[in-house]
Amino acid sequence: MTSQPFNQNEKDAIYRVIRERRDVRRFKADPIPHETIRRVLAAAMQAPSVGYMQPWNFILIEKKEIRQKVHAAFLKANEEAKAMFPGEKGEKYASLKLEGILDCALNICVTCDRQRFGTVGLGRTHQPEMDLYSTVCAVQNLWLAARCEGVGVGWVSILKPEDLPPILGLPENVVPVAYLCVGYTEQFAAEPELKTAGWNPELVPDELIFWDQWGQKKPQL
Amino acid sequence: MTSQPFNQNEKDAIYRVIRERRDVRRFKADPIPHETIRRVLAAAMQAPSVGYMQPWNFILIEKKEIRQKVHAAFLKANEEAKAMFPGEKGEKYASLKLEGILDCALNICVTCDRQRFGTVGLGRTHQPEMDLYSTVCAVQNLWLAARCEGVGVGWVSILKPEDLPPILGLPENVVPVAYLCVGYTEQFAAEPELKTAGWNPELVPDELIFWDQWGQKKPQL
Repeated sequence: MTSQPFNQNEKDAIYRVIRERRDVRRFKADPIPHETIRRVLAAAMQAPSVGYMQPWNFILIEKKEIRQKVHAAFLKANEEAKAMFPGEKGEKYASLKLEGILDCALNICVTCDRQRFGTVGLGRTHQPEMDLYSTVCAVQNLWLAARCEGVGVGWVSILKPEDLPPILGLPENVVPVAYLCVGYTEQFAAEPELKTAGWNPELVPDELIFWDQWGQKKPQL
Repeated sequence: MTSQPFNQNEKDAIYRVIRERRDVRRFKADPIPHETIRRVLAAAMQAPSVGYMQPWNFILIEKKEIRQKVHAAFLKANEEAKAMFPGEKGEKYASLKLEGILDCALNICVTCDRQRFGTVGLGRTHQPEMDLYSTVCAVQNLWLAARCEGVGVGWVSILKPEDLPPILGLPENVVPVAYLCVGYTEQFAAEPELKTAGWNPELVPDELIFWDQWGQKKPQL
């Protein structure tokens, strides 16, 4: 099979979804049609995976009771986190909305089975973390697919990794990689919220690109 | 700003690039125009990053001399890897082409600065690996953008992580996350090469989706 090149309209759509994807923390409760969820998860499962390992699973969490446990774990971790940012940065931290666990239509935990198809894997002999990275590629596919469906996604990382497995009943060799809030939203912000909030400045692309060696610049790119 | 919903043609383009992205190992040497590289890297830098940390750098490697060193590191690691797959699996392993380091137009090493904007980061207080995961999201954006430009990308993970920093002159707090072969290719395969080769079977989507708890199924999705 030789597939057709992508035309300009297609390229524009792809660059647009990459540009307009946001980490969403404010959600409407409206349910997401199952067909939409199915398309978004299918996109996730088309991610690259090391040694064609497909190490991912997707736990879709609707139940309030489960979400309340995760939310309690977030609150506990977030209290600890706040204390780590002193002074003005701490005040700014406290003012940020960092999750929508209880408000959104669906939570999705994306996990990685570290022993799928056995303990020795092609491409993981020297970089065993590659299965985790494959799972992250699936998360990014999910995020982009959701965005084009008008569905917001927010990644909650202010959780102690050991809190999730008992809540979700994970087997020993399965680790949670991403805990996602998923749902419709009033709007997708024009730029990342932490940029708007002045948490960190946007870095200049040219300063992030080197040639052949760290620190080496070429004028022409 | 409230942006327009994505129309059906746009959605089709986005799902198409996700579906037709491949891990490419066979390259043509034709150079990639700098404008194309610039667009693809800009897409990478629009990835989500924990705490708006933007921990990534991109080292574009053209020099043969540098690539030969990386290729030698691959050959060494690959010999060790081969020995880990006994019998029939080992023969199959040896028959696979797993990289295009010397053949492709460009190598790109995507790195993660683990201390960008300081040692304590929003969203990394309880999951310090989140900066690495942000960098992987950038890799997946790069991969999809390259695909729509007709440019193939292959991730080489059969490398000892400690071999790259001296070759590329990385500072102490910067780690290599992905070593990529990037270039035009005769064709993008219809399906993942390791599926075609029978290395692992494709998993059934329905078996990867659970509800509320690990292992719990719902018939309707």
